[in-house]
Amino acid sequence: MKGSYIIDGCECDFVAASDRGLNYGDGLFETMAARDGGIEFLENHLDRLRHGAASLGLPLPAMDVIRDELFRLVPGQGRAVIKLLLSAGSNGRGYQRGGCIKSRRVVSRHEWPAYPATSATRGVAVRMCRTRLAINPALAGLKTLNRLEQVLARAEWDDPQVAEGLMMDPDGRLVCGTMSNLFLLLSGSLVTPDLARCGVAGVMRNNILQCAARMGIDTRELSMTIDDLFVADEVFLSNSLITIWPVYQIDGQTLGRGQLAQTLRSELMSGPGVVALAS
Amino acid sequence: MKGSYIIDGCECDFVAASDRGLNYGDGLFETMAARDGGIEFLENHLDRLRHGAASLGLPLPAMDVIRDELFRLVPGQGRAVIKLLLSAGSNGRGYQRGGCIKSRRVVSRHEWPAYPATSATRGVAVRMCRTRLAINPALAGLKTLNRLEQVLARAEWDDPQVAEGLMMDPDGRLVCGTMSNLFLLLSGSLVTPDLARCGVAGVMRNNILQCAARMGIDTRELSMTIDDLFVADEVFLSNSLITIWPVYQIDGQTLGRGQLAQTLRSELMSGPGVVALAS
Repeated sequence: MKGSYIIDGCECDFVAASDRGLNYGDGLFETMAARDGGIEFLENHLDRLRHGAASLGLPLPAMDVIRDELFRLVPGQGRAVIKLLLSAGSNGRGYQRGGCIKSRRVVSRHEWPAYPATSATRGVAVRMCRTRLAINPALAGLKTLNRLEQVLARAEWDDPQVAEGLMMDPDGRLVCGTMSNLFLLLSGSLVTPDLARCGVAGVMRNNILQCAARMGIDTRELSMTIDDLFVADEVFLSNSLITIWPVYQIDGQTLGRGQLAQTLRSELMSGPGVVALAS
Repeated sequence: MKGSYIIDGCECDFVAASDRGLNYGDGLFETMAARDGGIEFLENHLDRLRHGAASLGLPLPAMDVIRDELFRLVPGQGRAVIKLLLSAGSNGRGYQRGGCIKSRRVVSRHEWPAYPATSATRGVAVRMCRTRLAINPALAGLKTLNRLEQVLARAEWDDPQVAEGLMMDPDGRLVCGTMSNLFLLLSGSLVTPDLARCGVAGVMRNNILQCAARMGIDTRELSMTIDDLFVADEVFLSNSLITIWPVYQIDGQTLGRGQLAQTLRSELMSGPGVVALAS
């Protein structure tokens, strides 16, 4: 299965070179896990898109139109990545958007990544990235098309034994992985970095916080540093494709191991309504 | 004259939807002024592109190829905007670039903006933007495709009497305009914000600093605040299209007026080698 694209409803894999997403990163995206004809956490992704579009002042297409286009690319069997990109369309050269913004939808399907089976069970080794995430409260939490920091951080290593890199803000606060959110079990509380200043607020992150709260676990969004990693009873990563990966090692140093990551993964993925099917 | 595009050498105005410029802002651009068959400060633009490509780890096409593609779009007579966008091409979904990056060139021609004739003579009124520029030394100075901060800042106003908005970093330091660099004449020195932490290092900014130095004027790159605007003898903006615009008013408050902006404009644009012609 190669990549397939639907752009503003039409099967086509090209966009206008004048697109403001290309020229300025003026837009948003969602990366979703498709499974056996359905999309995991679809409504959560659409909620985040709605929030991001409001924050950037982008008009949002009808959600039924988006759902329909997404499901046209979902395979009936097996797994695939479904991506939805919403740009400010072709509305003029220069930073000023044209008077009447017509946003552009790019829906695409991609092969499921070849993650090692052990990543979800034994866990992964990670590293600390040198590239920092800049502080910008206006964009914090949003999954915008301005992702050069993550690209540069990911370019820092090519050792396939290192599954992810953790990123800090300029003040040395831990924020997230290049493609994932970060969780620590600290003194019985499930703690994840506060994202009010930078970072992407993952759909899976939000679901994990809610799931843990339902299980009676104390959850907190806090400022934290590298030192917290080494005193944590357990460290794990999340995103919509990997769900949860335990972290057993960072830059060669062994971290605490536990069972919460596995328990949360089972709870999260077994609930009703995880996979949305075409209506 | 409508927009015209040459993409990797071919006349075409579409790019692959998988382009990493669109998906992650993984790339750079240059905006140049064409005049009567030539391009102003062409080699300075290519130098900045070279520096940016090295910083981002993007392979650079042969400069002769780029020059040739640019001149294919330069009109023989009159003025036009020539834009060169260099993206990391279609090298995989996800932040990690594929092993062998093939960058993509998008060269385009656009109508010369309808700037009021008085902007360069009488000057312009500007405003302070609420949107801040995040601090990221790794990207500071570069003209990358991650420009959402400028887009959001420019969306703050639509009063055509306000020509530009000035932006600060999170600590309240002045950095630049949404589309321009900022200069102050302060106690006889020509001062412009230091761009080591954020902002775009404009080609015109660099030329102005060099030109002023040749004229025997003391030039400095400093940290500065809004207060400095009101004690300055003169304030002006620069970019490759506007060259220099004096600023006579900010948020309704009148600023100092002088002759340096006009003198520098004349010096800058009358020198030999300003306009490069096709070889």
